[in-house]
Amino acid sequence: MDTVLRSAGKEVVIGAGRPFCIIGERINPTGRRIFCEQLRRGDLSRVELDVAQQVAGGAMVLDVNMGAPLADEAELMVAAVKLIQSLTDLPLCLDSSIIEVLEAGLATYEGKALVNSVTAEDDRLEAILPLVARYGAAVIGLPNDEEEIPEDPQRRLELAGKIIETATTRYQIPIEDVLIDPLAMPIGADTSVVVRTLETLELLRQRYGVNTTLGASNVSFGMPDRTAIVAAFLPMASAAGLTSAIMDARSAELVRAARACDLLLNRDDWGASWIAAHRAAVSAATAAAATAST
Amino acid sequence: MDTVLRSAGKEVVIGAGRPFCIIGERINPTGRRIFCEQLRRGDLSRVELDVAQQVAGGAMVLDVNMGAPLADEAELMVAAVKLIQSLTDLPLCLDSSIIEVLEAGLATYEGKALVNSVTAEDDRLEAILPLVARYGAAVIGLPNDEEEIPEDPQRRLELAGKIIETATTRYQIPIEDVLIDPLAMPIGADTSVVVRTLETLELLRQRYGVNTTLGASNVSFGMPDRTAIVAAFLPMASAAGLTSAIMDARSAELVRAARACDLLLNRDDWGASWIAAHRAAVSAATAAAATAST
Repeated sequence: MDTVLRSAGKEVVIGAGRPFCIIGERINPTGRRIFCEQLRRGDLSRVELDVAQQVAGGAMVLDVNMGAPLADEAELMVAAVKLIQSLTDLPLCLDSSIIEVLEAGLATYEGKALVNSVTAEDDRLEAILPLVARYGAAVIGLPNDEEEIPEDPQRRLELAGKIIETATTRYQIPIEDVLIDPLAMPIGADTSVVVRTLETLELLRQRYGVNTTLGASNVSFGMPDRTAIVAAFLPMASAAGLTSAIMDARSAELVRAARACDLLLNRDDWGASWIAAHRAAVSAATAAAATAST
Repeated sequence: MDTVLRSAGKEVVIGAGRPFCIIGERINPTGRRIFCEQLRRGDLSRVELDVAQQVAGGAMVLDVNMGAPLADEAELMVAAVKLIQSLTDLPLCLDSSIIEVLEAGLATYEGKALVNSVTAEDDRLEAILPLVARYGAAVIGLPNDEEEIPEDPQRRLELAGKIIETATTRYQIPIEDVLIDPLAMPIGADTSVVVRTLETLELLRQRYGVNTTLGASNVSFGMPDRTAIVAAFLPMASAAGLTSAIMDARSAELVRAARACDLLLNRDDWGASWIAAHRAAVSAATAAAATAST
């Protein structure tokens, strides 16, 4: 099942036989104090650097979250979408918990965006899915409802089913435009969470075959050596069926791990992309060394 | 199912709920020209460094292969086992294709060794399994026979079954002392090989629940950025049920990947080992910096 995302000039396809889709997480003020202050002043200059670093790192889609406290998030989302689309042709993932912000972003965005996210709560489904349908976007569904973030993979599958059913039958959103997040919790809080995430991925693959995404950095939250944890998590999740992740696309180690998944899981014919990435890295290092020595 | 290996003074347990067992691959002349020449002269001095580096890196068992062309392999195996057991209390994996070499090694070894390896070929089973039984060792079974190294995971499962049946019924070797190698071939030759290895691991887990091992470095043979490939392979294989690997225990990246598997797959209570390894690395770096600045 292929999910097609588009900018004005570029198409990115997420699917089980496709290269793992790296969604850059960086354009998000959470945990970034200076960026928060800049956003409150309407200063988006930092976004330019975030775009450049993520594009250079290997991002294939960029997540955009403007949720800085006390800022006008809808206005910022509109400005950010315009700015980012002037800087790169990567498709965007519009990320907000506020419906008006998602709507403002969708109205501004040129192309087919990914909406991040809807839950299985009735009021959220009823508010967000019509927007997704109207703008012909794709959407990420989180399998939690009013009651709980379920621990049981079977219960997550049920709630994913509710999202998929509602999206496809009530709002005529094609099933390939619904991505499910199997929920990746911090391993530091409970060392059994990843096993449940992997089980959920397997269940989703067997039952629905939908595309999937998750916030990969979340797994390592609060632990030392975070990159090494995420670098080991991605191959497990990818082998269990994960087809994209919102992750740190600036990290060479993580991007290499995602590309190694493609190579190892037979999504990189002849290893051509792996070898090309190696050659590009060698060329870049050689050029940098030459510049440094002059 | 727990496989217990022993040296004179130490016990190592391989099992699905246990930390992933890192078997150091380094004491092996394959591809090491100078080491080959040293072995032909009976010079084992290099083995001391190999032991020290692998122990420091995090090896839990050491593979010992003395297969240098034109050398007296049995004599070298005896000398190497004696030497290594004087240097470390890690259990050993005696690695040879020659039955007399395995026998000489087993006769010398103090403890319960792992024998690497037997195939599903009748003459190999009849020659090696009696040795394994007589010395109370454990053994690695490779699911290939006279005819073929099968590509089909189901056929690999059948040949693994033949090895397990023969070992347990004809030679009364406990099933927990038979490890199966699901066969890890170079991804560079055929990008579908790892998918088949993972399928074989799943089948072995479902059907027999035996412990498993493989030569992890082999997967990356002939490709650039080999360590990154193996670092992504280990988490996939570990999640599919792999309980040990013969690998480069000197590589901090690979040892960290194996430990991340333990953390992520709920084999590291409270993440205690992960955090302890992080602290040890920080202390070592601090000590090294202090030494460098004096």
